[in-house]
Amino acid sequence: MAQKIRKIGVLTSGGDSPGMNAAVRAVVRTCAYHKIDCVGIYRGYEGLIDGDFEPMDARSVRDIINRGGTMLKSARSDRFRTPEGRKIAYDNLVENKIDGLVLIGGDGTFTGGLIFNREYNFPVMGIPGTIDNDISGTDKTLGYDTALNTAVEAIDKIRDTASSHNRLFFVEVMGRDVGHIALNAGVGAGAEEILIPEENLGLDRLLESLLRSKASGKTSSIVVVAEGDKTGKNVFELKDYVDENLDGYDVRVAVLGHMQRGGSPSCYDRVLASRMGVKAVESLLEGESNYMVGIQHEKMELYPIEKAIKGKSHINKELVRVSEIMTT
Amino acid sequence: MAQKIRKIGVLTSGGDSPGMNAAVRAVVRTCAYHKIDCVGIYRGYEGLIDGDFEPMDARSVRDIINRGGTMLKSARSDRFRTPEGRKIAYDNLVENKIDGLVLIGGDGTFTGGLIFNREYNFPVMGIPGTIDNDISGTDKTLGYDTALNTAVEAIDKIRDTASSHNRLFFVEVMGRDVGHIALNAGVGAGAEEILIPEENLGLDRLLESLLRSKASGKTSSIVVVAEGDKTGKNVFELKDYVDENLDGYDVRVAVLGHMQRGGSPSCYDRVLASRMGVKAVESLLEGESNYMVGIQHEKMELYPIEKAIKGKSHINKELVRVSEIMTT
Amino acid sequence: MAQKIRKIGVLTSGGDSPGMNAAVRAVVRTCAYHKIDCVGIYRGYEGLIDGDFEPMDARSVRDIINRGGTMLKSARSDRFRTPEGRKIAYDNLVENKIDGLVLIGGDGTFTGGLIFNREYNFPVMGIPGTIDNDISGTDKTLGYDTALNTAVEAIDKIRDTASSHNRLFFVEVMGRDVGHIALNAGVGAGAEEILIPEENLGLDRLLESLLRSKASGKTSSIVVVAEGDKTGKNVFELKDYVDENLDGYDVRVAVLGHMQRGGSPSCYDRVLASRMGVKAVESLLEGESNYMVGIQHEKMELYPIEKAIKGKSHINKELVRVSEIMTT
Amino acid sequence: MAQKIRKIGVLTSGGDSPGMNAAVRAVVRTCAYHKIDCVGIYRGYEGLIDGDFEPMDARSVRDIINRGGTMLKSARSDRFRTPEGRKIAYDNLVENKIDGLVLIGGDGTFTGGLIFNREYNFPVMGIPGTIDNDISGTDKTLGYDTALNTAVEAIDKIRDTASSHNRLFFVEVMGRDVGHIALNAGVGAGAEEILIPEENLGLDRLLESLLRSKASGKTSSIVVVAEGDKTGKNVFELKDYVDENLDGYDVRVAVLGHMQRGGSPSCYDRVLASRMGVKAVESLLEGESNYMVGIQHEKMELYPIEKAIKGKSHINKELVRVSEIMTT
Repeated sequence: MAQKIRKIGVLTSGGDSPGMNAAVRAVVRTCAYHKIDCVGIYRGYEGLIDGDFEPMDARSVRDIINRGGTMLKSARSDRFRTPEGRKIAYDNLVENKIDGLVLIGGDGTFTGGLIFNREYNFPVMGIPGTIDNDISGTDKTLGYDTALNTAVEAIDKIRDTASSHNRLFFVEVMGRDVGHIALNAGVGAGAEEILIPEENLGLDRLLESLLRSKASGKTSSIVVVAEGDKTGKNVFELKDYVDENLDGYDVRVAVLGHMQRGGSPSCYDRVLASRMGVKAVESLLEGESNYMVGIQHEKMELYPIEKAIKGKSHINKELVRVSEIMTT
Repeated sequence: MAQKIRKIGVLTSGGDSPGMNAAVRAVVRTCAYHKIDCVGIYRGYEGLIDGDFEPMDARSVRDIINRGGTMLKSARSDRFRTPEGRKIAYDNLVENKIDGLVLIGGDGTFTGGLIFNREYNFPVMGIPGTIDNDISGTDKTLGYDTALNTAVEAIDKIRDTASSHNRLFFVEVMGRDVGHIALNAGVGAGAEEILIPEENLGLDRLLESLLRSKASGKTSSIVVVAEGDKTGKNVFELKDYVDENLDGYDVRVAVLGHMQRGGSPSCYDRVLASRMGVKAVESLLEGESNYMVGIQHEKMELYPIEKAIKGKSHINKELVRVSEIMTT
Repeated sequence: MAQKIRKIGVLTSGGDSPGMNAAVRAVVRTCAYHKIDCVGIYRGYEGLIDGDFEPMDARSVRDIINRGGTMLKSARSDRFRTPEGRKIAYDNLVENKIDGLVLIGGDGTFTGGLIFNREYNFPVMGIPGTIDNDISGTDKTLGYDTALNTAVEAIDKIRDTASSHNRLFFVEVMGRDVGHIALNAGVGAGAEEILIPEENLGLDRLLESLLRSKASGKTSSIVVVAEGDKTGKNVFELKDYVDENLDGYDVRVAVLGHMQRGGSPSCYDRVLASRMGVKAVESLLEGESNYMVGIQHEKMELYPIEKAIKGKSHINKELVRVSEIMTT
Repeated sequence: MAQKIRKIGVLTSGGDSPGMNAAVRAVVRTCAYHKIDCVGIYRGYEGLIDGDFEPMDARSVRDIINRGGTMLKSARSDRFRTPEGRKIAYDNLVENKIDGLVLIGGDGTFTGGLIFNREYNFPVMGIPGTIDNDISGTDKTLGYDTALNTAVEAIDKIRDTASSHNRLFFVEVMGRDVGHIALNAGVGAGAEEILIPEENLGLDRLLESLLRSKASGKTSSIVVVAEGDKTGKNVFELKDYVDENLDGYDVRVAVLGHMQRGGSPSCYDRVLASRMGVKAVESLLEGESNYMVGIQHEKMELYPIEKAIKGKSHINKELVRVSEIMTT
């Protein structure tokens, strides 16, 4: 039987994403609603080990729902990968009478939480906070929607100058292992070509496509490239390759970079964060543990953390096809 | 047996919404992809009756994916409500050899399309374009996501000044019959209270809530109100009511208004529009008719127009509860 | 000879404007740079009377440069209009060893400061913070540039929907006594007509202009109206008037309202705030008093507060002419 | 005596900047107002040589005031650098009965115009369109204000993630020869250090500054770097240098790039463009030639193109000092 939860700790870990603050706020306010205590843990697992704790109430999270980043800070923790580190963390939790943890982060965050849970049978509940949308068990991760808008708005600006000058731009967006951002931002920005890790378009087909595009009278082009695309070339190498193999294009590169992680969260991400925060706390209160809160078919669902880690987020094949139709 | 489709007409009708242009673009490009003709029909059913047609190809829809409004214009048509008007419309379609119609709009647009289909057995396919998200058979309507972001960004600005002055603001958002925008924008903007048509909060409870909020040290408040909320008072009357019945608040009103219909669509709406446009055209090509293209559980689905019209879009009860927890 | 300044107080008063936080930050950091103490005074003159003071250092103003509103809050103070109130304020300053005040606000704020200075010979320095740009002695007030961008972005959205529906919109922007916002936002948004307090266009000419516009094939129109325009009608009355006197227009109203006061400040306002904050503190340190810091010809200048209050900000006649050429 | 002007040509050339479309619109509408003809020339001097002309009226420039880029396209022209190329251009102008040219662009554009004027005594009038603000004779160039806002908004987002992770970011902004963008965006974004071409801060002082910043408890930092700063290292080399010479910082790089050239112009740039367009056309009509329209002390002024080219835009020393005070 699950012990009764009287105090919950919340931390953010891994790469930050827009909506993390809104999720922290929701966790804190749900605790207040249920009249249990809430503690903010700074710098993820590092703060857990260092005992960097702060009691939080509704006032602590005032005016943060619209802010990017995470007020609890984030960090990677090598120490938490060691049994010694986790032991200290556990002792800190016990000493502070914390009975459950809400972990906001991605794959690495969840892996740490799972190991910790297995060692100490400590109740943990995950919230998927990452812009990459690369976690299975949830249709959307927290921050993904905002990152797409940021990417599309930046590409809109780049298109202004590309069109004015008849230029070809390679625009690199985030996504080392999965092409969700590239595919969606590419379709959203009306890109002429999209290169993602899941599909090996091949350099030949890229050249062909650019030639066809040029022949049809298009004088400027945007090619959106995921960091981890499968051509084996990064955007700068792609530029060189096209410069060498294709005449009459003025080729440029833009790397959107970390900008995509920041910014005020979209309404979608703020609402998702609020729902996930409520669900995470109430699930802990109901005695659940080792789940990630996901959104599936517009509903809040619990999904085993273990499956979330091992699972794979698949690219939407229908959208790949849509992108091909839109760019022909 | 469905006749073979060789030329498709597309129109936008009813209140405009962000993403309509992206949907028109997708319809046009999908026709080009399948090597069939496409015709833009201006001013909705009015243009159908007036024969205000224009052939469209990929070039016609260049650089419109990121624009608000609709390049095809929209209008309400009293004439299309008469058999005589619809007869002229039909003759125009036959004369122009148009074999199928994609109708982008809301409830009224679909009703017109359904009647027209029944009279002339003319293939029609609907795309739900409206910011209100009030159509059943689709988890999201086109433009809804953008409208939420517009509302939340405006309320963020209002909060800046509300906080600086310890003021109470009643902010009216769109939504005459349904509270989706109010509920989501309210949660997203961290409103202290949300008034929607689906729930009769009652004025007494509103006063109580504001008193409680004040007692807890909150010195400024945002109350988000749907146009059609059930208190029976509009925002200006609400202001007067609170002025009379609650001391110590400097109460103001903000009506967000038509701004919510415009603006560059969010990435979500652009992608949704692209998917729906492809699906609408390909469904017509496959011989389908009388359906609306919806998104359900992240997938494109056909939904009978008749059910879409008669159905009702229900407020998310879980989110109502989340809003109560967040505002306590 | 001016006494040596060792501690400076800073307050914001009157209507808030974007950039006030950036100015507070600059005041605090300039004090730190010169190794003198700085005290934040909450809620303007109210906090001065209530002794609502807080010592501030570089950390206190971290991460506020990009935020709308004012972290020091603002309020109107009836008590400060009385000699008794000012006496208490003065005693609080003496008790807290504050030797100089930076006053961020508009006309009313400066009037209060001037009276206070005359009674107690207390060093005061003003920073013009108001979105209305209605203060003489400075080419721009703090927040004005941001408010213009906010207004123009909102009108851009309204134009999307106006164009889609062939509608005429009356858009009311702030500006009770001066038309700077209306004139600049009107030109910036490409409005078809602009009504400002300084020019009595007259209703007849408005109708003529709309008729001409319609005759030339324009099917939608935006008329930007300053709150205090001289037609003697507010936007709702204007709508009714046009409805009655002009056929074939679907007329709507949009009131932008308090949204214009909030939002993250533009780069211009952040830089202006930083420069003004430095100048205000250093001028006090140099023994100056009773001046407002203004920007004239791109340079920081001191301008007597007395003249700033009595002066009048004139509408740019050349820009009025530009607006006429653009809208013909 | 100047010949009477009956037809004006307008072109955009060099790097595009936000507000160019608004300036083209103003030129076209001012011509319409004065009932003279106007011709758009595509792709700058290239189109002048190719005879790529199009008559323009008020309708041609509808709905472009808010768009980035330039509808007339821009290009660099090697041919216009040759007497033969300019001869063809002149013949095209004569053949098309164009009596005057409005040239929207930067340094290179103006140099071409000046040579052309000297050879053929052809009336030319310049409008300074470039984001770099590097032209003397005008307090602001067209597009500069928008570029600053774009840069600051991007850095705000980067700061979100920098703060969450205690990271140091080198952010490169545009400005090969002048540091206006870096200095203003740096102050506006609250950067901890700003590197510009005009001041050789030196790497030692940079390290010292970062050390001091760290010692004072700051855990994240933004260093804004102009493309052409004088450390002799680009942002990637700076990162490597700091990685090697400073412990305990997680250093990252962001290059804002061409995004800064695009986007919807700010209200300031739209108004400035409108004023400059009117002034340029009316100055040609008054028989003036070989001037650039500048804004000086908030007024439209004519400035000899020759001086504009040879002149140098100086960094604001007062603002350099403000930046030092803000970052100490």
